[in-house]
Amino acid sequence: MKINHLVDQIKSKKSFLCIGLDTDLEKIPKHLLKEQDPIFAFNKAIIDATHTYAVSYKPNIAFYEAYGVEGWIALEKTINYLNTNYPEIYTIADAKRGDIGNTSGRYAQAFLKHLNFDAITVAPYMGKDSVEPFLEFKDKHTILLALTSNSGACDFQTFSKDAEEDALYQSVIKTSKEWENSENLMYVVGASKAQHLKAVRRIVPDSFLLVPGVGAQGGSLEDVCKYGLTKNIGLLVNSSRGIIYKSKNEDFAKKAAKEAQKLQKEMAKYL
Amino acid sequence: MKINHLVDQIKSKKSFLCIGLDTDLEKIPKHLLKEQDPIFAFNKAIIDATHTYAVSYKPNIAFYEAYGVEGWIALEKTINYLNTNYPEIYTIADAKRGDIGNTSGRYAQAFLKHLNFDAITVAPYMGKDSVEPFLEFKDKHTILLALTSNSGACDFQTFSKDAEEDALYQSVIKTSKEWENSENLMYVVGASKAQHLKAVRRIVPDSFLLVPGVGAQGGSLEDVCKYGLTKNIGLLVNSSRGIIYKSKNEDFAKKAAKEAQKLQKEMAKYL
Repeated sequence: MKINHLVDQIKSKKSFLCIGLDTDLEKIPKHLLKEQDPIFAFNKAIIDATHTYAVSYKPNIAFYEAYGVEGWIALEKTINYLNTNYPEIYTIADAKRGDIGNTSGRYAQAFLKHLNFDAITVAPYMGKDSVEPFLEFKDKHTILLALTSNSGACDFQTFSKDAEEDALYQSVIKTSKEWENSENLMYVVGASKAQHLKAVRRIVPDSFLLVPGVGAQGGSLEDVCKYGLTKNIGLLVNSSRGIIYKSKNEDFAKKAAKEAQKLQKEMAKYL
Repeated sequence: MKINHLVDQIKSKKSFLCIGLDTDLEKIPKHLLKEQDPIFAFNKAIIDATHTYAVSYKPNIAFYEAYGVEGWIALEKTINYLNTNYPEIYTIADAKRGDIGNTSGRYAQAFLKHLNFDAITVAPYMGKDSVEPFLEFKDKHTILLALTSNSGACDFQTFSKDAEEDALYQSVIKTSKEWENSENLMYVVGASKAQHLKAVRRIVPDSFLLVPGVGAQGGSLEDVCKYGLTKNIGLLVNSSRGIIYKSKNEDFAKKAAKEAQKLQKEMAKYL
């Protein structure tokens, strides 16, 4: 998907909400377990109920791999359902992959071509040749981990000797700008680190940022918007558990929609 | 698998060879394409022909994911074949995963429990809570990327301001030693960076290292052994393309065995 189509969708829905499909058989409503494919049944219901409030869906691949072949079938059905029924939706494979060049190429093919996601999250540790194979795909995006929302983010990402400008996450963003097709890059910057968004915006004033960690992980949407919004929006804010597991009963999709609408309304205020 | 079982196997085979199963339908012999499952047929033939010279096999998961559901079926068949027929073999899922805590837990379940690999490679960028869920599994190992064999390794892994001791890869190894169940850690250190093995051994004198990059990527086995060998061996040296794609004809397994034997004989000299 071209970036301007994503921006148009954000403006028309007054939402930059991404919903994380971290679908876990132990957390979905019990009545779905008698469906032939409970994971897909859950995802379909969530998508149908929330798509007017969200511009993007992001299955985290770990939750599908955990169920082996059945998980992959559910993942394929989910992305095909989105691409067929909601072609305006921006789809992200939250895979956090990264390997030596020719191997990263295989991951890129898997997610951006065969499964036909619009974007994939990628880990930067292995450097340029591990990321460039993802960047080759036209109108697809590579969302590089910069500063994540978890506690371990402080182990290495903020690793620096002297000033904050030396922090690894800043070096990752700066260095990646020099890579081939770097216009296809976006970055993960966690909401729990909103104060760092100012520094990130100094390096990439226009790039889209995928921001996890609002809600369950304690980040504030107001702070994220204050430091992160650009004239082209430039933000996708993700919520997973806070939306999809709002209820464990038959009304789960309705409750998820209500929660998504609440976030959408707050987002509309900042647009 | 307990480490002493791996060490016993290395001593009895006089080999610390790991064979990478980077199985690519475009590179395997054409006659296999008429098999019902060409990926598994190739892997099975390679394993049967080479297992006396190798102590470990390492499917790189990218090559399986590239084929979606069919790839996962081939991966499951490969690991089940190894676990059933060659239980002494040490199996590594080269997955380079890593995510926030609860999500890493799903990857750990998928590879260490359901697929029942002995070990998995993990990326350190997201820090402690992204790695510890893998470390919880008893008699399983987490092979943390420290210094990889690709050119991009120099983008961030050797990132330091002043002295080499400040390099990110050294900080990764030092920091990880403090994590819970860190006795289950091994590290990836590329053969093309053999001069760094000395520094690595100062930090982890006894840990097992998985060393890719001998052969195709230009690393020298002699240098790796000089700086990396310990009294308990402490090394697994991987070769993938150099062995499995030695021939594109009907004799591919025989040629792979010959190549594996050549490496094994060289290894025996250093033991």
